[in-house]
Amino acid sequence: MRLTRYFLPVLKENPAEAQIVSHRLMLRAGMIKQSAAGIYSWLPLGYKVLRRIEQIVHEEQIRAGHIPMLMPTLQPADLWRESGRYDDYGQEMLRITDRQDRDMLYGPTNEEMITDIFRAHVGSYKDLPLTLYHIQWKFRDEMRPRFGVMRGREFLMKDGYNFDVDKDAALHAYNRHLVSYLRTYERMGLQAIPMRADSGPIGGDDTHEFLVLAETGESEVFYDSQITDLKFGDREIDYDSVDQCRAVLEEFTSRYARTDETHDGALFNAIPEERRRTARGIEVGQIFYFGTKYSEAMGATVQTAEGSKVPVHMGSHGIGVSRLVGAIIEASHDDKGIIWPEGVTPFHCGIVNLKQGDAAADAACEGLYKALTAAGLEPLYDDRDERAGAKFATMDLIGLPWRITVGPRGLAAGVVELTSRRTGESEELTPEAAIARITAIYG
Amino acid sequence: MRLTRYFLPVLKENPAEAQIVSHRLMLRAGMIKQSAAGIYSWLPLGYKVLRRIEQIVHEEQIRAGHIPMLMPTLQPADLWRESGRYDDYGQEMLRITDRQDRDMLYGPTNEEMITDIFRAHVGSYKDLPLTLYHIQWKFRDEMRPRFGVMRGREFLMKDGYNFDVDKDAALHAYNRHLVSYLRTYERMGLQAIPMRADSGPIGGDDTHEFLVLAETGESEVFYDSQITDLKFGDREIDYDSVDQCRAVLEEFTSRYARTDETHDGALFNAIPEERRRTARGIEVGQIFYFGTKYSEAMGATVQTAEGSKVPVHMGSHGIGVSRLVGAIIEASHDDKGIIWPEGVTPFHCGIVNLKQGDAAADAACEGLYKALTAAGLEPLYDDRDERAGAKFATMDLIGLPWRITVGPRGLAAGVVELTSRRTGESEELTPEAAIARITAIYG
Repeated sequence: MRLTRYFLPVLKENPAEAQIVSHRLMLRAGMIKQSAAGIYSWLPLGYKVLRRIEQIVHEEQIRAGHIPMLMPTLQPADLWRESGRYDDYGQEMLRITDRQDRDMLYGPTNEEMITDIFRAHVGSYKDLPLTLYHIQWKFRDEMRPRFGVMRGREFLMKDGYNFDVDKDAALHAYNRHLVSYLRTYERMGLQAIPMRADSGPIGGDDTHEFLVLAETGESEVFYDSQITDLKFGDREIDYDSVDQCRAVLEEFTSRYARTDETHDGALFNAIPEERRRTARGIEVGQIFYFGTKYSEAMGATVQTAEGSKVPVHMGSHGIGVSRLVGAIIEASHDDKGIIWPEGVTPFHCGIVNLKQGDAAADAACEGLYKALTAAGLEPLYDDRDERAGAKFATMDLIGLPWRITVGPRGLAAGVVELTSRRTGESEELTPEAAIARITAIYG
Repeated sequence: MRLTRYFLPVLKENPAEAQIVSHRLMLRAGMIKQSAAGIYSWLPLGYKVLRRIEQIVHEEQIRAGHIPMLMPTLQPADLWRESGRYDDYGQEMLRITDRQDRDMLYGPTNEEMITDIFRAHVGSYKDLPLTLYHIQWKFRDEMRPRFGVMRGREFLMKDGYNFDVDKDAALHAYNRHLVSYLRTYERMGLQAIPMRADSGPIGGDDTHEFLVLAETGESEVFYDSQITDLKFGDREIDYDSVDQCRAVLEEFTSRYARTDETHDGALFNAIPEERRRTARGIEVGQIFYFGTKYSEAMGATVQTAEGSKVPVHMGSHGIGVSRLVGAIIEASHDDKGIIWPEGVTPFHCGIVNLKQGDAAADAACEGLYKALTAAGLEPLYDDRDERAGAKFATMDLIGLPWRITVGPRGLAAGVVELTSRRTGESEELTPEAAIARITAIYG
């Protein structure tokens, strides 16, 4: 993309309404614009990040054998009356009446609707195991929406639901989700720690939240420092293997890690003192096993191999897709702006032309732009007639991980400059070598 | 995908509630499930088609230089009060009150919101031309939703908005959209004819609808038969070229083609009688130039090169993404089921194992499955323990354009069977040749 043809309305001033750094930077970098309290438009740069996150979530869900579909945003109230949650849910549920005076709601989650789909179409253990998921906009009418997309009212979430014949099979689905979530967050450049959690309005016994450590996190967290040394990395996993998935769960949950809601002082104090850590965390996902809570209330049964009818065992599993945009920025920024991890960056690299209108500089920038594009990458070429300082400030603010700087003086020596946004380190190399390096980084 | 691990709840019976063939076939093929009047869940097969259509729309919009973003589903009523449409819009607008008693609505379209974004960030002719678009769920509270996703209440639409310094520039944007829409529909295997239309509640003088000819279309259409011979084909176009875009518009709109709303009997009768056609059509998109209607009402101005402030010239341009799923089926089906065009098919080909459990047949199917997957294609392998007739009926119903049939008898002779869903023609060839053929078709 050429910047003169893009829509990137960066702000010079810090917006007064933004209390936390991700909200401030998303507004300044022209990623979002508020349209009402807790409701945002995703401007082009923000939308690109949102889509990259969504794509990683899809890829990792499909890798784990989960099946994508899409449920609507609006739901009939009657479904929620069946589970008893219509009256329980309180004022965070946005209730709507249509022109025929039917009670509707803007879905905050989809346990009832997916159970309704299941009971209409599935009746035998032979069709199990089954995990369906979707990525859809949800609404939660927060009393005081704040922190930008971190605590918005209209938010994008991946929610998935497993259906299994018994508790053991459902716990395998739980473990499988935990593994796929570890992979998902790592691909986004995040360390998200699974912590024992409260089940809240979903219900159920087994549940873990995934928390990203960040000073501005809304939860206080307590953990054994050994846990931050764990990496899923690029190990191969067979998602059908009960043993492999359980082993990963045990590895990642056997050390103490809890939020203030489930914190147990005695257990925490049993950790050697030098490994005890207290910090703040941002919740970016949660997995639940809740058994037959919804299937019993709504009559979702399957016939077993022995011929009896049993309520299906279920769990639900969420990833906060729009919230992750903010969480990644909270975890990865500096005084100058955002620092995108390579996995989610909106553009793979920036190209800064130090002297727009100089024939050699223009030609070199065009050459880099075309070569990177031909390699399947998306560069952002700052082709504005602006001074170098303004171009660097914009690139630093929007946080592309790599920048190629092109100027007449370097070109006379046959080189351009490649700079890492994270380290600030630069090196001079030929345009061809710069292309090869960028291509290898994303290869 | 292996069918035993998929969720494809096909129905044997014709659902009573479906009046038109696309609705019937989408229900029977397990593509959708109604959750409330005019509101549908997209089951896995339907979701895949929806995503393929969405992807084509994105690719062609980006090719035309339009910039993707995303606006929220809910909008504040105050924006619509500025344009005067809040009171005008009538009962099809779903009005919502949140917990703070603020008036909101579920957006049926986004002229006001995009104009608000524009006026907040753009002030100079130097930032023009600019076209922003998004693909987002909309709501239209139809009195009598019917025909499945063809006339649903919650529907997915691409809507784009151009901003230009004057009428000439805005008309180029109009022409550019017309060209990009021709390309978009052709890639979906559709012939969509641009017809002069009424502007309705959007307002404006220049507008064309795109109609797909189908017996079940809601509009009566009148046209010169020469128009159906026009193809955009694979011609190269420079979207920045005013002349090239205008020439395409003239080529595709100079012959008579109108809906009943704008039909002119005298003009129609001036066509030679043997070229006069009357048929029915399904609207799948519409483009508008409406000038300064919204920019004047909402104060969206730009400074010109001469230094004066003028209201920006705008247009809006829509493609009915979810409706297209139904429209494609209306235009492409037979007694046995759907016939997907290659451009939007949910899976690239089916693999039918005639004798599940036969070692040679199983191995050959696995080999085909892996080779096609490795080539970047998505096959659907019917690995159920079912008789051949049931497998063929499912494949015909869900409409994959190509089917490879594998059985012990053919394998003994070294061949499998490749069948076209559209023509029904089959030929025997080696598995390697079948893979090469399928790969070439989608290459």
